[in-house]
Amino acid sequence: MTSHLVECVPNVSEGRRLKVVDAIGDSILGLPGVWLLDRHSDPDHNRSVFTLVGTPSAIAEAAFRIVASAAEQIDMTQHRGAHPRIGAADVVPFIPIEGLTRHDCVALAHEVGARIGDELSVPVYYYGDAATRPETSDLSALRRGQYEGLRDAIQDNPARQPDTGPSRLGSAGATAIGVRGPLVAFNVWLNSDDVEIARRVARALRTSSGGLQNVKAMGVLVGGRAQVSMNLTDTRRTPIAPVVEMVRREAARYGSSIWRSELVGLAPRRALLDAAIWYLQLPSETVQQTLEDRIQGALGRSIPLLE
Amino acid sequence: MTSHLVECVPNVSEGRRLKVVDAIGDSILGLPGVWLLDRHSDPDHNRSVFTLVGTPSAIAEAAFRIVASAAEQIDMTQHRGAHPRIGAADVVPFIPIEGLTRHDCVALAHEVGARIGDELSVPVYYYGDAATRPETSDLSALRRGQYEGLRDAIQDNPARQPDTGPSRLGSAGATAIGVRGPLVAFNVWLNSDDVEIARRVARALRTSSGGLQNVKAMGVLVGGRAQVSMNLTDTRRTPIAPVVEMVRREAARYGSSIWRSELVGLAPRRALLDAAIWYLQLPSETVQQTLEDRIQGALGRSIPLLE
Repeated sequence: MTSHLVECVPNVSEGRRLKVVDAIGDSILGLPGVWLLDRHSDPDHNRSVFTLVGTPSAIAEAAFRIVASAAEQIDMTQHRGAHPRIGAADVVPFIPIEGLTRHDCVALAHEVGARIGDELSVPVYYYGDAATRPETSDLSALRRGQYEGLRDAIQDNPARQPDTGPSRLGSAGATAIGVRGPLVAFNVWLNSDDVEIARRVARALRTSSGGLQNVKAMGVLVGGRAQVSMNLTDTRRTPIAPVVEMVRREAARYGSSIWRSELVGLAPRRALLDAAIWYLQLPSETVQQTLEDRIQGALGRSIPLLE
Repeated sequence: MTSHLVECVPNVSEGRRLKVVDAIGDSILGLPGVWLLDRHSDPDHNRSVFTLVGTPSAIAEAAFRIVASAAEQIDMTQHRGAHPRIGAADVVPFIPIEGLTRHDCVALAHEVGARIGDELSVPVYYYGDAATRPETSDLSALRRGQYEGLRDAIQDNPARQPDTGPSRLGSAGATAIGVRGPLVAFNVWLNSDDVEIARRVARALRTSSGGLQNVKAMGVLVGGRAQVSMNLTDTRRTPIAPVVEMVRREAARYGSSIWRSELVGLAPRRALLDAAIWYLQLPSETVQQTLEDRIQGALGRSIPLLE
């Protein structure tokens, strides 16, 4: 049984040319100690999300290869998409899963970052728990002006110097490397083609404009429909169900409603179980009452529920 | 890794004298190859539910011991409770989990039943997939008149002869032994002390009176509140979420609403995940998007999601 496990979720700025996404995924093919758990591509966001898990040394190598492959194949001067981005390998978070702490993951993130800066000449910013200064800890601040805006700012503005790598932006852009807890990337489409409604709903929802804690949200047009695209950064404290109900209520204010939702990548099981418990009016402890968990626990085949 | 696993969920007619329930549970203490996963006691129903899992031979021995212990310690002539019952060890279902079929479980159920009839002189009825004739296949038909009614009927009515064991009811009553798929025992309390409302809601819900498929329901008074007590026998085809919404709507018809719910014993994880998916308007395939399942799958520590 493996006892040290880290998750890594590289987001790359390509969601249309699937051959390029395949090639990026292939860069870790056959690497021992790493498993590709999921891949999600979105043509409107023009972005793909890989979910990997592995031992610390293997996951560090895998993260480096994905950044290298994306940097080689994606030209940010040509990139258009609904999702904000600063680079080919836009963001690379590490998440502790088993047998190690966030602190251990910060060391890992800095090690990978230094290698990317040195060997690939890609500017690297550390964010989340891996940040070395307050200015870069928040991803949305770090992405201000996106690739195009950062191209000038990285040379002119001392506050926007990278943590490692050159202070200039090539066609691969920059990469944000971070450490965080499990996050739920959750999109809700409205029954509307008016992106302005999604933007208003997002504004009412998100932490940064006075909404709910632990919610990042933006309004975008995806597949011709208004979408509220969210990152829920702590679903233990700010669970999915009331967030979705707030989306529903804010959308109703503009005469709209929820068409459907989607989960981007993977979510901690508990985030979904808690939603069932919320809607069904069950006590919170019901999360412990699934047959499979008890069987896995009894037979010693379980991993802990992620917090 | 164990490759043959059976679940067994004995329901015994004691939910008040917890020392008796303890003693029944202790009868399987130290038995190798069996794990007690859960125990749920309800004083109003005056009933306890044990959830066990184990290898076929160990689970057969465990089921026998629990029936023997319950038969010895519970006097049905003194038993009162909200839940219908025919015996001390009222119902003993077997559920295939891994590496064997329902057909294999029927052989196991018949083997345990024969031993109970012979060694304990307790009349045994086979129900569900283990039934040998249509009259006993449905548990509610089998329980008609309950312990008190069956005492006469077992002697007078040829259709109510047991499958094995004596044709007379002692203080231990009779035991129904069956094979079924995973079932969700789900109770919903209403904001009312009027049991008649719960009875009407149950009538509107249950299969036998024209409601939803795969739903057994009754209205009872538990803790001074009206409760709709349900067995959902196939949550893949008739999921929890629309059942709960129908309870909500029928209760509203009588000016009432849902106070809270509870899960009795354990539920297949998928039944809860499907409820989250239903309410959050996610696509059904989202059930495959939990991080823990993917990790367990990658590391070979998973058991299949129960259907």
